[in-house]
Amino acid sequence: MIKSVKSLVQLMGKSNILEQVRYASQALPQFSSEKYHIKRKNFGTIESADIGFFKSILSEEQVVTDESDILPYNIDWIKNCRGQSNLVLKPKNTEEVSKILKYCNSRRLAVCPQGGNTGLVGGSVPVFDEIVLSFALMNNIVSLDDLSGSLVCEAGCILETLDNYVRERGLIMPLDLGAKGTCHIGGNASTNAGGLRLLRYGNLHGSILGIEAVKADGTIVDCLRTLKKDNTGYHLKHLFIGSEGTLGLVTKVAIHCPVLPNAVNLGFFGVESFDNVLKLFKSAKSNLGEILSAFEMADFDAINSTVNSLNLPKPISDFPFYVLVETHGSDETHDNEKLMKFLSQEMETGLISDGTVTSEPSKMKSIWNIRESIAGSGLTVGYVFKYDVSIPQKNYYDLVPRLKTRMGDKALLIYGYGHVGDGNIHINVVVPEYNSEVASLLEPYIFEEVSKVNGSVSAEHGIGFRKPKYIHYSKDPSALQLMKDLKQLMDPNGILNPYKVLPDGPN
Amino acid sequence: MIKSVKSLVQLMGKSNILEQVRYASQALPQFSSEKYHIKRKNFGTIESADIGFFKSILSEEQVVTDESDILPYNIDWIKNCRGQSNLVLKPKNTEEVSKILKYCNSRRLAVCPQGGNTGLVGGSVPVFDEIVLSFALMNNIVSLDDLSGSLVCEAGCILETLDNYVRERGLIMPLDLGAKGTCHIGGNASTNAGGLRLLRYGNLHGSILGIEAVKADGTIVDCLRTLKKDNTGYHLKHLFIGSEGTLGLVTKVAIHCPVLPNAVNLGFFGVESFDNVLKLFKSAKSNLGEILSAFEMADFDAINSTVNSLNLPKPISDFPFYVLVETHGSDETHDNEKLMKFLSQEMETGLISDGTVTSEPSKMKSIWNIRESIAGSGLTVGYVFKYDVSIPQKNYYDLVPRLKTRMGDKALLIYGYGHVGDGNIHINVVVPEYNSEVASLLEPYIFEEVSKVNGSVSAEHGIGFRKPKYIHYSKDPSALQLMKDLKQLMDPNGILNPYKVLPDGPN
Repeated sequence: MIKSVKSLVQLMGKSNILEQVRYASQALPQFSSEKYHIKRKNFGTIESADIGFFKSILSEEQVVTDESDILPYNIDWIKNCRGQSNLVLKPKNTEEVSKILKYCNSRRLAVCPQGGNTGLVGGSVPVFDEIVLSFALMNNIVSLDDLSGSLVCEAGCILETLDNYVRERGLIMPLDLGAKGTCHIGGNASTNAGGLRLLRYGNLHGSILGIEAVKADGTIVDCLRTLKKDNTGYHLKHLFIGSEGTLGLVTKVAIHCPVLPNAVNLGFFGVESFDNVLKLFKSAKSNLGEILSAFEMADFDAINSTVNSLNLPKPISDFPFYVLVETHGSDETHDNEKLMKFLSQEMETGLISDGTVTSEPSKMKSIWNIRESIAGSGLTVGYVFKYDVSIPQKNYYDLVPRLKTRMGDKALLIYGYGHVGDGNIHINVVVPEYNSEVASLLEPYIFEEVSKVNGSVSAEHGIGFRKPKYIHYSKDPSALQLMKDLKQLMDPNGILNPYKVLPDGPN
Repeated sequence: MIKSVKSLVQLMGKSNILEQVRYASQALPQFSSEKYHIKRKNFGTIESADIGFFKSILSEEQVVTDESDILPYNIDWIKNCRGQSNLVLKPKNTEEVSKILKYCNSRRLAVCPQGGNTGLVGGSVPVFDEIVLSFALMNNIVSLDDLSGSLVCEAGCILETLDNYVRERGLIMPLDLGAKGTCHIGGNASTNAGGLRLLRYGNLHGSILGIEAVKADGTIVDCLRTLKKDNTGYHLKHLFIGSEGTLGLVTKVAIHCPVLPNAVNLGFFGVESFDNVLKLFKSAKSNLGEILSAFEMADFDAINSTVNSLNLPKPISDFPFYVLVETHGSDETHDNEKLMKFLSQEMETGLISDGTVTSEPSKMKSIWNIRESIAGSGLTVGYVFKYDVSIPQKNYYDLVPRLKTRMGDKALLIYGYGHVGDGNIHINVVVPEYNSEVASLLEPYIFEEVSKVNGSVSAEHGIGFRKPKYIHYSKDPSALQLMKDLKQLMDPNGILNPYKVLPDGPN
């Protein structure tokens, strides 16, 4: 039995995950089932004959049964959830996924699909002894049509690997996440990942052209078209985008890659009030128009605590709010002119109090690094209650000051940051350690407040294991019923990613 | 009984439809059931007690039973399909739609939903005596958030009305169609309408934020969120986008409206070969980048026959191919510079042989009018076999010369035009009158050829009544089975838009 996270980190062996995990405390997390008082559902249990079957269809290294080898697959990266799986299977192609699921379905063995395991709601780790089905070995790029920009690849391809591949061919991936060095495209699709540039390139329902998925009974559903327009019957691929592996496992993805921009610029601005942040957003939409690729904001505490705890250089002095504006364009001169016009105009009106603009890759990287580090930085201080909500822009920041009043000195830090352009704010509440009194002050209060303004209690992180009991704050009862009906239709034995997404599973 | 289309036209009373119908011949079309040898399914028949019920929940003018009043609802605008409905219901709100469907479902009365009735595959007119449920009276705009750009409206709002409304507030609708003056947003959503600017603003799966729909049993499914990011469970709205009213009736739509561009330019170019058209597309993507909003092509016969038959002015002299390039941008000077650079570069390389560029609204309208008139112009000459297919760009135009060889003198004209940027080509085959020998030379040949290159046999028009028997050319058996399963789940009595979309309905 492995007792500390140090060995876990060694096993994982990926610098990106290493970096993420080093912020977490060293103790192994409690089992999710105990922490959250979950009862095991009536699934089959793995017997030696089952292992025998899997070994008969897979090679030795594709069937992992060693406890220490399995540990990393049982724990999520924020070290909140921990499952008890004894078996990890690593199929190399769709047919193997199909055979595995067909068998599991007939034996009622539960399955937890796992991509890069970078999720934040415990969706990608087992709860009990579900078989972990890892897509790590399904990482082939199938094709790229550089005229239309359609890329076809297997589910286990790492987002950054794909981005590097298409960049060499004059294209970019239509999504970008802090976890890009680890997350899989299949996981991105299954969780409808959002990220930093959704404002410009749209969401995955728009940019994914086709999906190949395997149903619980092993049926391969082939919707792997590479066409931008295809109105031949129901648009089935959307069933698998964002359903977090509970309706079928995504095995291949066809995705539209936009053209690599010739010119990229990044501005980092200090702003005096949130009202000014909103005004600046409106101005950026109008002045930068089609070249605006990101409009992010972070409040003082978000930036300050991040640069301090991680010893990062701070680009400008102290301001109540910071705004990060990125442009992607085809003409460097035009983009500079637009940005300079925007900047001088809003320095004059006072919407921007101070700022820096750069097109130098290393400087842009250093600014993005601050923004992308906010998510993990609180973990160096203590326990972080993390919320990821969508709120209509006019109410976007309201919750942060309200929470500060509500929590008083019970929290070390409360800060907000996120994608203003998409109405998506991340709110972090940092406390010395997990504390149920604090938890009960935060939840369901935050979800109730979000619900009052018709917001979303999970903007991009999904529902996973952590949030099924809060889903009703954002989902109408009629919609919840339809979700259950679909689950029953697609996976009648409920073997796919149980204890996740649906408030009450069919099992 | 009304015998001629003249009275029909008078009854319809809309100049846009008038214009469309005047190209058609004067005789009423044959009943679809006879023309296509369809057998009525085992639905209930309308009795006086049913009319009594509808009159008890709706006002007098919402229950249409007069034969001559009903005729326009029975015929599609290309005058190909004709149903035999005796009852049109015009609900004024979602609750009325719900009551109607609940009652129809209990009585197994079939229902044909109808928006602007501008579809091209017979999806919006009944086949037998289905009750027509018209959304014409559900045309309220519910709300517009001009900061985020989210518009909420009822299904019966006309696209052009919405576009005018949001333009006054600095926004545009994310889609544009030739039928915009007549088509309904609910129909656009139900058919996943594509159109002229999909290249820039993406498809409706990306831009529709929320849907309210009513299931066959009258259940109102509320997914009417206005958020750009909402990952709370299954993304149910996509079930209703593009399923052509067979899984539920769309009653309200929330949609994201992009910012109104400050500068619009339109170029119309003569090109010597299709190979050059593709090269020009690649250059436009690179040089015009983010401001490129449309890249359309039409061959000589498409443009020539259109300007001749409709007496339209021809912008430039004769060329084998014409390309229409539109830009939407935020800075007039920058856009002009980009366009001029592109133009002078490609005049020099010879990709563009001749051309005209304008930003004058009346001139742009006149060029767009030629492009938008191609679809209807063939009807002035005779019968038109119309195909709407997606083909990988490198094979985009292959079918047209191949069809010319195959058809020889059996066709008056064969031409291709469409949205190169989206891989979507429309192929029209004009003959003096409908002829089954010609039909058998065209079908399934065209669909087989499209299938060979993994294209789509219906890029944007949908499947409707006309194409269920060809759907298998673009849809895998596993996908077709899943479609049937979903239909059975959502509409077990099969009352919603029967004889449409699915190759074999559940009834």
